[in-house]
Amino acid sequence: MTPNKTATTLADGRELIYFDLGADARQVGHDARSLPPVNTTSQMRWDPLLEEWVMMASHRQERTFLPPTDDCPLCPSGNGRRTEVPADDYDVVVFENRFPSLSTGADLNGAHSNHSLVEVRPAVGRCEVVCFSSDHSRSFADLTPAHARLVIDVWADRTVALSRVDGVEQVFCFESRGEEIGVTLSHPHGQIYAYPFTTPRTSRMFQAAANHRRRTGGDLHTDVIDAERRAGIRVVAENEHWVAFVPAAARWPVEVHFYPRRRVKSIPDLDGAERDALAMIYLDLLARLDRLYDMPLPYIAAWHQGPVEDPDDLGYLHLQLFSIRRAADKLKYLAGSESGMGAFVTDALPEQVARRLREV
Amino acid sequence: MTPNKTATTLADGRELIYFDLGADARQVGHDARSLPPVNTTSQMRWDPLLEEWVMMASHRQERTFLPPTDDCPLCPSGNGRRTEVPADDYDVVVFENRFPSLSTGADLNGAHSNHSLVEVRPAVGRCEVVCFSSDHSRSFADLTPAHARLVIDVWADRTVALSRVDGVEQVFCFESRGEEIGVTLSHPHGQIYAYPFTTPRTSRMFQAAANHRRRTGGDLHTDVIDAERRAGIRVVAENEHWVAFVPAAARWPVEVHFYPRRRVKSIPDLDGAERDALAMIYLDLLARLDRLYDMPLPYIAAWHQGPVEDPDDLGYLHLQLFSIRRAADKLKYLAGSESGMGAFVTDALPEQVARRLREV
Repeated sequence: MTPNKTATTLADGRELIYFDLGADARQVGHDARSLPPVNTTSQMRWDPLLEEWVMMASHRQERTFLPPTDDCPLCPSGNGRRTEVPADDYDVVVFENRFPSLSTGADLNGAHSNHSLVEVRPAVGRCEVVCFSSDHSRSFADLTPAHARLVIDVWADRTVALSRVDGVEQVFCFESRGEEIGVTLSHPHGQIYAYPFTTPRTSRMFQAAANHRRRTGGDLHTDVIDAERRAGIRVVAENEHWVAFVPAAARWPVEVHFYPRRRVKSIPDLDGAERDALAMIYLDLLARLDRLYDMPLPYIAAWHQGPVEDPDDLGYLHLQLFSIRRAADKLKYLAGSESGMGAFVTDALPEQVARRLREV
Repeated sequence: MTPNKTATTLADGRELIYFDLGADARQVGHDARSLPPVNTTSQMRWDPLLEEWVMMASHRQERTFLPPTDDCPLCPSGNGRRTEVPADDYDVVVFENRFPSLSTGADLNGAHSNHSLVEVRPAVGRCEVVCFSSDHSRSFADLTPAHARLVIDVWADRTVALSRVDGVEQVFCFESRGEEIGVTLSHPHGQIYAYPFTTPRTSRMFQAAANHRRRTGGDLHTDVIDAERRAGIRVVAENEHWVAFVPAAARWPVEVHFYPRRRVKSIPDLDGAERDALAMIYLDLLARLDRLYDMPLPYIAAWHQGPVEDPDDLGYLHLQLFSIRRAADKLKYLAGSESGMGAFVTDALPEQVARRLREV
């Protein structure tokens, strides 16, 4: 369960950690670049209309945007070119984002809102980049099961480590793939946000779970899984440890939720067999996604772990995988109803999407 | 306050209403097209994880998508071509959407979710299209103040009419402009959704307003307006009846909220002077938006009216105008944090955006 892990420091002081498939000790290369210090003026502000925090990181306007392949900062260094990774190869590598929305050193620098209802705080936390493979042209779906399992172990490792960071309330592991959804680097990678607050979606899910518990005595997610398995029509894949289904009230043109059969609250809680089984079902589904339109599907894979503290025992780990592609040549945009009112309209019935995903 | 209004019926039974600037009676043309009946199988499903309704309208996959200019269905009919508007000219015209997400005749047709926690209901309501001008190449910002005022009167008229429709709980007037945000027709137009539920954003704002009332005895929106006017740094424009500011915790790269100085709950509550003053401040701001990057800015303009019933007196009408353009050549996409967790990260500080909007 503990991957082979080697930590080092980049030229500007950011932490970088190699996670290797083999057991050999790694020789750590030196980052010889001359880098400006990381900007840590991120702040967060309280939105009194919705009672949510909004993060503000104005330095991110300058972040790297779709560089040419031969200038990819996530590839290994080599041939005289120095990237973010001072090594000639790696399996999985994690490092702190150079343009972070959240930072352990966040400093308000005197910033304030001049508004009694809008509190401003430093956006304390951490943003990490997870490179899934050193091969620029690969995607997560191309990983071997053992390599995918290593990524799962990395998510577990980082969740434990980041949950211990002062001020961190929730750890969010995710992948965004596809220029269509604004991904600025095409190298296969994901990100981890360690937030200093409980995110709005999680707050709402926990509220719904508390309401459900009060009403029925049951666990909301357990009851949702049972209902989906009984109905069957939206289940896309299942194995001994996991079930994957299109939720009955899906918001996105393609949306699949993955739940472990055993209720756990976070990725580190998964045992070895559950992690292996996750690698299998997830790789299968990712391949199906790309077969839907015979092209790489843009997607977001969002790991819903509860907040670090869950005193009312409401959390249930799950993965939400979704895409905005609603047809081979059409994307689903958040239109007025969704982005103005939060009221979603979808074009596809979940049962039809599930059937297509089973068939392809 | 009552515009010159002439109602008729399209070939498939949908209602169409002309609103004219002049006082002359209009001769109503006949819609001689042969149209299939409107599909009314829209449903809505209860999402038990977030306790929100999701609308599902699978027939909308077939809706008209970026037709060539000479085939625009929102232009007046003429030269042998029959559009949605059987007239050779109009000022403002409203008609029921041919591909509605919500319909007064919505019928489940036996559809169900097979899931005890996911209720399915017919998506009863109404979706209307509002053409702001017969001139295909114009945009809202190009309207004269009198023409813009007519549109405001139309929103008021439709809000009153749709609030009376059986089952309707909230009326949402909005405009989406720009292919960048998925607008499928470039003719200047907006839409109106009459929902059979209170939308998620409104529910949250009302909850926040109730919390604020309990805590302070005050009205949330009134106190926000006062704080913004006192701070001054985010105010973009102001006149006798309206104030427009970038909210201190703005979520979008460009975001302006417009509030009437007098607290009213809906567009029909605005008096004549307030409507005229709205036309002036809104046209000024729209022109500024287009000067930001010297190009038509894609935007969503969302009118936040309370639900039809507001027993606790929590509503305050306001307009939220926002854009996803974060630079001349860059859009803000909803990335993993926003669409997975509902946690927004912005690149621009509200005070800087307000200063630019005042300067351009």
